[in-house]
Amino acid sequence: MKSYSELTREELLELKSELEKKYEEAKAEGLALDMSRGKPSPAQLDLSREMLDVLNSSSELKAENGIDVRNYGLLEGIYEARKLMGDIMGVPAENVIVCGNASLNIMYDLVSRAEVFGFDGCTPWAKLDKVKFLCPAPGYDRHFGITELFGIEMITVPMNEDGPDMDIVEKYVNNDESVKGIWCVPKYSNPQGVVYSDETVKRFAALKPAAKDFRVFWDNAYAVHDLYPEKEVKLLNIFDECKKTGNENMVFELCSTSKISFSGAGISAVASSKNNIEEIKKYMTKQTIGYDKINQLRHVRFFKDINGIKEHMKKHAALLRPKFEAVLDTLENDLAGTGVGTWTKPLGGYFISFEGLEGTAKAIVQKCKDAGMTLTGAGATYPYKNDPKDSNIRIAPSYPSLEEMSKAAALFTICVRLVSIDKILETK
Amino acid sequence: MKSYSELTREELLELKSELEKKYEEAKAEGLALDMSRGKPSPAQLDLSREMLDVLNSSSELKAENGIDVRNYGLLEGIYEARKLMGDIMGVPAENVIVCGNASLNIMYDLVSRAEVFGFDGCTPWAKLDKVKFLCPAPGYDRHFGITELFGIEMITVPMNEDGPDMDIVEKYVNNDESVKGIWCVPKYSNPQGVVYSDETVKRFAALKPAAKDFRVFWDNAYAVHDLYPEKEVKLLNIFDECKKTGNENMVFELCSTSKISFSGAGISAVASSKNNIEEIKKYMTKQTIGYDKINQLRHVRFFKDINGIKEHMKKHAALLRPKFEAVLDTLENDLAGTGVGTWTKPLGGYFISFEGLEGTAKAIVQKCKDAGMTLTGAGATYPYKNDPKDSNIRIAPSYPSLEEMSKAAALFTICVRLVSIDKILETK
Repeated sequence: MKSYSELTREELLELKSELEKKYEEAKAEGLALDMSRGKPSPAQLDLSREMLDVLNSSSELKAENGIDVRNYGLLEGIYEARKLMGDIMGVPAENVIVCGNASLNIMYDLVSRAEVFGFDGCTPWAKLDKVKFLCPAPGYDRHFGITELFGIEMITVPMNEDGPDMDIVEKYVNNDESVKGIWCVPKYSNPQGVVYSDETVKRFAALKPAAKDFRVFWDNAYAVHDLYPEKEVKLLNIFDECKKTGNENMVFELCSTSKISFSGAGISAVASSKNNIEEIKKYMTKQTIGYDKINQLRHVRFFKDINGIKEHMKKHAALLRPKFEAVLDTLENDLAGTGVGTWTKPLGGYFISFEGLEGTAKAIVQKCKDAGMTLTGAGATYPYKNDPKDSNIRIAPSYPSLEEMSKAAALFTICVRLVSIDKILETK
Repeated sequence: MKSYSELTREELLELKSELEKKYEEAKAEGLALDMSRGKPSPAQLDLSREMLDVLNSSSELKAENGIDVRNYGLLEGIYEARKLMGDIMGVPAENVIVCGNASLNIMYDLVSRAEVFGFDGCTPWAKLDKVKFLCPAPGYDRHFGITELFGIEMITVPMNEDGPDMDIVEKYVNNDESVKGIWCVPKYSNPQGVVYSDETVKRFAALKPAAKDFRVFWDNAYAVHDLYPEKEVKLLNIFDECKKTGNENMVFELCSTSKISFSGAGISAVASSKNNIEEIKKYMTKQTIGYDKINQLRHVRFFKDINGIKEHMKKHAALLRPKFEAVLDTLENDLAGTGVGTWTKPLGGYFISFEGLEGTAKAIVQKCKDAGMTLTGAGATYPYKNDPKDSNIRIAPSYPSLEEMSKAAALFTICVRLVSIDKILETK
């Protein structure tokens, strides 16, 4: 295909008229597609249906250590659940606390505690004039939502193909004491699907933070969420690296089964140094009597161990892969060579990140919406919902059916092309 | 029995020597009794075993409104769970948010949000020089734990037979702008089992707080936890009263199924005015993607409605009543007339409150511990764990078996008598 910018005004207008016809046809279908969130599809949720059978009225309801999972107690969760979640992250059970159904809540609580009580004896952030977080972007909107709520200044760090721009990260972290944290999705990053390189992970571990209470929020949400399980995509274990550099207190790693078992009813976990785990427990014991241990046991009995999880994830991959490929094929067929957009081809995770021409993202999302297709709001992938180039769009292919997904992708490229042609025409 | 203070030194020493023998006998049994927390017994937890069957792999996993309970979303919980929890509190479903497994966590989050963000546009508490909470005492140690953690000054308010001393409550709330909250367990209060009288509830509703952001934390933990279900013990509905006085924003009511279904794996809820519910949701949406809706549906399918809950609570009562009565009988048999203690005779809830001679509670708890019986730490029922008279002991009869409970009660009165005799001997 010829690059649109090389087309004449007349050629562009002709193309536009064709695409407008297609757009009106799509619109007339009365679509109602939601690609706004990384929600598993009903078929994916069905993969864990039998988890609802593993605990029933005749089950032994005791954890390995003999504790009755129905009763109060065991703040850090049952050992076997800590082991299971630890194995997802590559961390010993002793360094893991298993919490409720949302790792987002763990991150919120961590930031909230730092604000009010401070980490590790340091001044509570709320008492400081200025607190900053580094936000590799495009990134996860709900991360930015937490820091924005607490009035933390968010600094955008560009994402490269091997992770955040580490020159910038090092410059800030090692020199600016008001930089207290960074949000990371190190494997299959949201939304680009970037896997941090070994070099990037090592540079994280080797940071020399100006602030003693600087923390890396290592949200390993897609640790086992490979689309091509046979292709081994490895993320270096950050705690192993931090052991070498003496930075073990610097990292909180998070994970959950939200996209393994049930998105609304899974279990979540935080891993960190012994010191940090003790500190978390000190506050947690005032906050709760402990999280739902029946659900923890249910997960362990169903998955058994990390191998059970890996086998289960292959079934997710089998459902997700065709949807990702349908989107990627449509993008390739309709947009390759046009010069109006680039996109990532992730090997895992839940998103495809589309990069359009500068100043087109909002208009594309709106145009899709007018035809019945909801995308994540343009800008949502940047701090303060402000994408400076207005060019990034997050595509979430998981929820719609394959058929819907193909329709949605076709509509998406029509909208991309229409908006981009208008943009190019402005300069002709 | 003759009052110990009227006995001669010789009589007391003789009695002491008898009791010491009994104490040594009990000690020799190598008891391991835990009466420290209000934990349901395994038999009580077994009452809800079949709740684990109501959702299984062949179940329809949709809420009444068609939403898939396995997936993300529905921050406030499924409607039917809001209705069920609302009916426990006598509040419409629209005024209820259903949360995770612990109402303690809801209270912690409320206080934490007030500290950081402030209620209803008011200055965040963390930015004020002084924040105070009224703490009717003896009361619930975990309430005091939250306020202590946040550095909130706790003011002890004496408990009367019909609730907190309302003259003192009114004096503080209506005149001191730094008084921002009060902890209440209005029905079967922890640990005394007091039910607030209609007059007390009305006086609460009629408060004219000096602080716009003063809040009543109405922890209705034992709303349906009657020991004698045939004796109707009614608590006036505080929201009905607050409607009359225009104070609907003043109250957060809490409840949970921790002592209805499974203590570690129930559901909890907060009820408040429309205005407050909206405010809670505004923050909750940054904090979580919503709580476990599968567990919410499981509870609704099992209990069906408030009548199902009430029937279920009769079974709890049948298990708890004999234990309470065993303790009360022993106290009566061993201590009536001795003048060394008084105790409450609650019609519901989880505790009996024992009031010993001044300066004996710590010693009694220690003496019990030395013989293998763990009680709630003396002082725990007061702010800062400081019982000014060192006289209150909380007895939690629910967890041990009836046989153990009888042994425990006998040991308890031996310890009470021994310590009290020593105390009286000091003055002889």
